[in-house]
Amino acid sequence: MILVADNLRITHTTISRALNERDPEPIVEMVKACEAAGAKAVDINTGPLTRDPENKMNFMVQTVQEATKLPLLLDTVNPNAIAAGVKAADNSIIINGFSLEPSKLEGILPIAKEFNLKIIGYLLRPDGHVPKDVEERLNIAVALYAEFQKAGLSDEQLIIDPVVVPVSWQEGCRQNKEILYVLQTLPDLLGFPVKTIAGLSNLTAGAKNKFKAHLLQQAYMGMLAASNLSMALCNVFSPAIVGCARACQALTQPDVFTWEALPELKYS
Amino acid sequence: MILVADNLRITHTTISRALNERDPEPIVEMVKACEAAGAKAVDINTGPLTRDPENKMNFMVQTVQEATKLPLLLDTVNPNAIAAGVKAADNSIIINGFSLEPSKLEGILPIAKEFNLKIIGYLLRPDGHVPKDVEERLNIAVALYAEFQKAGLSDEQLIIDPVVVPVSWQEGCRQNKEILYVLQTLPDLLGFPVKTIAGLSNLTAGAKNKFKAHLLQQAYMGMLAASNLSMALCNVFSPAIVGCARACQALTQPDVFTWEALPELKYS
Repeated sequence: MILVADNLRITHTTISRALNERDPEPIVEMVKACEAAGAKAVDINTGPLTRDPENKMNFMVQTVQEATKLPLLLDTVNPNAIAAGVKAADNSIIINGFSLEPSKLEGILPIAKEFNLKIIGYLLRPDGHVPKDVEERLNIAVALYAEFQKAGLSDEQLIIDPVVVPVSWQEGCRQNKEILYVLQTLPDLLGFPVKTIAGLSNLTAGAKNKFKAHLLQQAYMGMLAASNLSMALCNVFSPAIVGCARACQALTQPDVFTWEALPELKYS
Repeated sequence: MILVADNLRITHTTISRALNERDPEPIVEMVKACEAAGAKAVDINTGPLTRDPENKMNFMVQTVQEATKLPLLLDTVNPNAIAAGVKAADNSIIINGFSLEPSKLEGILPIAKEFNLKIIGYLLRPDGHVPKDVEERLNIAVALYAEFQKAGLSDEQLIIDPVVVPVSWQEGCRQNKEILYVLQTLPDLLGFPVKTIAGLSNLTAGAKNKFKAHLLQQAYMGMLAASNLSMALCNVFSPAIVGCARACQALTQPDVFTWEALPELKYS
């Protein structure tokens, strides 16, 4: 399970301002901090970029590449922004992402084919809503994979995101428990060892107490790791979350265990 | 997943002295602290009690019952001590435990039948050693269940302990990963929803840094919870471990999630 930073988001006022003013410094600084904290890839979450999408994504990718050689996830619903980001990129790129929503099948999936890139597929209904139960999630996975194959992509390009929901949702815990089952089932269902990603921060969206939120994310991260999650998208600035990710890696990697693999996290 | 305290052990010099001098106070104090910390059962680990087993176990059980009404696990290889503990008990009792070792099949398993008690069965070889791989673990589970049935016990009396091994062992991480698979497979293998227990402290036996040890136990606890572990035997005096257990419970229990279910664990 590798750690992907979700910290570079347009919803941070510092990042939003930096993007609007084309000021690279705060972006470079944040990306360097993500890598120093242990991120092995960085999600560039720009939002929909309704105004000037190509220039803005071009600037973001160029700027992030000043700070890191890590793989970058282009996280936007705007196909023009994605295409511009892909063209600006030297680092390896993952498109984040598509779903059964017609606009994404038509606008985003073909970009992965054109540029031969990995792409994240969300287990969401065609209307963009979260499925109601495990059966619907599995049916959506099959339909999503069919669209993916129809677009001419090869299996190793697909990364599935089962869409973790907030615990504060009605039946949120039931849904997140079902997501573990979905992760365990996907390789048999699709017939190959499909890669997977999950966003941990969404688990505790709206939480007022960050310590409680991170404790919950730690517990769920262990559950995801036991369900063979490939990539954990999360807040790499939390020592508790990064510490737990490194513990999960130490426990699941095939080579020899060493205590040096673990950070020291003091608590009270 | 319920939390069982492993703190009451003869290897603590305070407890050892209290038992030898028949001084109830340190034992009562520790058991009250375990319950206050969130334990829902208490393991009474007396060691083999080679001298005066009946009187010592009788004293332990009587003393622990002064402090709590929680279920008690009688954790010793000495059948005479177990029988004495059972006779002294008002609280509900779980025998901890038996395995394919002949002395335990002959000496301990019949006590569970005689007194109609739950009993923990360890997935260990007849020579008491840890099995080498997942196939051997599953074969041992089948053999253990056959002995259990032969002794005339009913399914709901069985609790299986797959025996977590120290990460510092050669291939310890591989073995503990396989244990997750064993936990997930046991209900199908035995044909009923068998209860399970695992000892978390053993994961980090010999660890010099307790913060790193507890971080590793947190991550593995999430993995165990995702594998449907029924009972986690652990150090309930670690806020990190208890916090993680409560987070696991909040995530896996079927009823409504509340933030109040989680303790506040500050870290640095």
